[in-house]
Amino acid sequence: MSQEAQLIWTDVEQIRAQAPLVHNITNFVVMNNTANALLALGASPAMVHAPEEVEDFVSISNALVVNIGTLDATFVAGMKLAMHRAKALGKPIVFDPVGVGATAYRNRVSEELLELAAPTIIRGNASEIMALAGLNAQTKGVDSLYGSEAAVEAAQRLSLVWGSVVVISGATDYVILGERVATIKNGHPLMTKVTGMGCTATALTGAFSAINADYFQAATHAMAVMGIAGEIAVEKDPAPGSLQVNFLNSLYELLEAAITNRLQLTQS
Amino acid sequence: MSQEAQLIWTDVEQIRAQAPLVHNITNFVVMNNTANALLALGASPAMVHAPEEVEDFVSISNALVVNIGTLDATFVAGMKLAMHRAKALGKPIVFDPVGVGATAYRNRVSEELLELAAPTIIRGNASEIMALAGLNAQTKGVDSLYGSEAAVEAAQRLSLVWGSVVVISGATDYVILGERVATIKNGHPLMTKVTGMGCTATALTGAFSAINADYFQAATHAMAVMGIAGEIAVEKDPAPGSLQVNFLNSLYELLEAAITNRLQLTQS
Amino acid sequence: MSQEAQLIWTDVEQIRAQAPLVHNITNFVVMNNTANALLALGASPAMVHAPEEVEDFVSISNALVVNIGTLDATFVAGMKLAMHRAKALGKPIVFDPVGVGATAYRNRVSEELLELAAPTIIRGNASEIMALAGLNAQTKGVDSLYGSEAAVEAAQRLSLVWGSVVVISGATDYVILGERVATIKNGHPLMTKVTGMGCTATALTGAFSAINADYFQAATHAMAVMGIAGEIAVEKDPAPGSLQVNFLNSLYELLEAAITNRLQLTQS
Repeated sequence: MSQEAQLIWTDVEQIRAQAPLVHNITNFVVMNNTANALLALGASPAMVHAPEEVEDFVSISNALVVNIGTLDATFVAGMKLAMHRAKALGKPIVFDPVGVGATAYRNRVSEELLELAAPTIIRGNASEIMALAGLNAQTKGVDSLYGSEAAVEAAQRLSLVWGSVVVISGATDYVILGERVATIKNGHPLMTKVTGMGCTATALTGAFSAINADYFQAATHAMAVMGIAGEIAVEKDPAPGSLQVNFLNSLYELLEAAITNRLQLTQS
Repeated sequence: MSQEAQLIWTDVEQIRAQAPLVHNITNFVVMNNTANALLALGASPAMVHAPEEVEDFVSISNALVVNIGTLDATFVAGMKLAMHRAKALGKPIVFDPVGVGATAYRNRVSEELLELAAPTIIRGNASEIMALAGLNAQTKGVDSLYGSEAAVEAAQRLSLVWGSVVVISGATDYVILGERVATIKNGHPLMTKVTGMGCTATALTGAFSAINADYFQAATHAMAVMGIAGEIAVEKDPAPGSLQVNFLNSLYELLEAAITNRLQLTQS
Repeated sequence: MSQEAQLIWTDVEQIRAQAPLVHNITNFVVMNNTANALLALGASPAMVHAPEEVEDFVSISNALVVNIGTLDATFVAGMKLAMHRAKALGKPIVFDPVGVGATAYRNRVSEELLELAAPTIIRGNASEIMALAGLNAQTKGVDSLYGSEAAVEAAQRLSLVWGSVVVISGATDYVILGERVATIKNGHPLMTKVTGMGCTATALTGAFSAINADYFQAATHAMAVMGIAGEIAVEKDPAPGSLQVNFLNSLYELLEAAITNRLQLTQS
């Protein structure tokens, strides 16, 4: 545990030192939050979606984050070009299939993106991971109707098919790569009352994947930091408006001791 | 009054218990705020605008909110498909004609949307309600140049023509359905210094319309909760940055006593 | 200095009294922030980008702000129509070439916009100003790799070619018009940890340009107010989440004394 806390802290220090450029093609709801979370962590965020320029931008970036929360034809075109280029350049791709399972369009686009360029890391809630694995999961819009443990088998299947690290976020977060499984029990239920906290976890995962090429570790560290910063923020004021503000403060002010003292990580 | 406060509280409890899925096609400026306000109230928000999927999404939603604040051709196409489907399925539609009267395009689109599917509830400021009723109202961008009382006749006309509940928001909010009129004097002028507070009122109205089929009541209750949460927030810190944060906290922490003690509602 | 502080205060009072309508065609990341900053300052913001209506909207506005942060074909079409109309009507145009230099698309669009309608004021960081002046500046996404002083010559060249006031923001802000140079040393490094603070400076510059036709002054005053409000906010709580909130509060509560006591302005 202590050793793992140290590895997480090393990654945080690397991000703060290198300020990796994280290219986001993400949804309108969370662009501001995720940019601010990346800045607070120490990364350099950019939101760029136009088909005319995403390939150029991928080329100068250290990681690509693709999130389909408010997808439309223009954004999907940009996502495809960007993911194709990132794959060709060997840059990490983090994919967030927001709301997959809710509409046929989201299912089709997600499938197309996976086939075009298997993501390095996929992060979703249980409903999304189950839907992405082809199970007939029920969704409630962008919210999950299942606990994260219900999607472990689906995540393992996804990981096997695409070779991706798969993260299921929930009360317990699971990080899965083939037979490797990490569980993180950090975080707080109030985080589900702030829009885009899942999307923020995905964006932070992009930053970790930019500086740690062990992507299983990168995803695990991102989820741990997300959960720990959230806990600290909720303790300051257990209300959702304050949480959004204090979460950014906590990320920015994060100390090694907080990770050491709070980390709830198990690996198998 | 006390009985009305109890009805409002019952609606709040219903939203918290059922977490209705509110489908928003709204503007870029407020997507984050309105999603957070819906979450803080207890609803489940989703922002989905692509013509390829809005019909599917309406089918699984409990209410549709359409807001033309930053409209363009793609969004208008999505609005039309979504409103048509919502009408066919008998789901409540809440329409916010942001800035109507300011440009010919906004006037034309609003007219087309009304004719395609008369909204269950229309919410706007006085300038917008007057413009939507075909009066030659002057607007100042998205701000009103009139007090809400100036638009009562226009609202009654709109309500008659489209069969909609019409809400005029302002220092006094009016809720109008044919001869029925409710006035709410809750809220605080500082709320006009936070962008998208009107759009947030519209989004919350969507949540109330999802759980209360008396849409006159639903609109009235939404405006009362909006105003009361705003008052509490301003009392914590009378500054616009803090207001945005404290408004979400107040909504989330709202107690029956706050409604009972603060409600300024008159019906005729 | 004291006289300059008085001129700045007069502009702030003018904005509060007249609430000029500032038409923004800006990026998705900052729309909410910049609208709130304009409201907190006392202006009336609107975000309108559709080609179908931007010309109408420019006609009723007092200034136009164009920001290419998340540009795509639809937005660029809107920008062109709006800038062309604003030029024809003699309305001030403030241009923010976010991320220019990072992709060929951004370079081409920026060049086209400049040639179509030379902006009244251009504001960017050092990398952007150098790239816009045709220098082979390196950029890191939307962040600058240079201190602002490195771009002074580029800014003078840009100012000469386009007749624009050019603002380089950084630890020291430079405002340049031909031979005229003002430097402002207000602000705080933590402001770079909040996304869109540069875009907010551009938006506020739009408000000042709407009420002060000496555009060199307008830009100078905007940058001074931006920096001073930022300093006050950082002193309340030196953390980025809080800064975003407190910045809006500081703008709203700004007093003449704060300007008089804090202004760090030099002109030559």
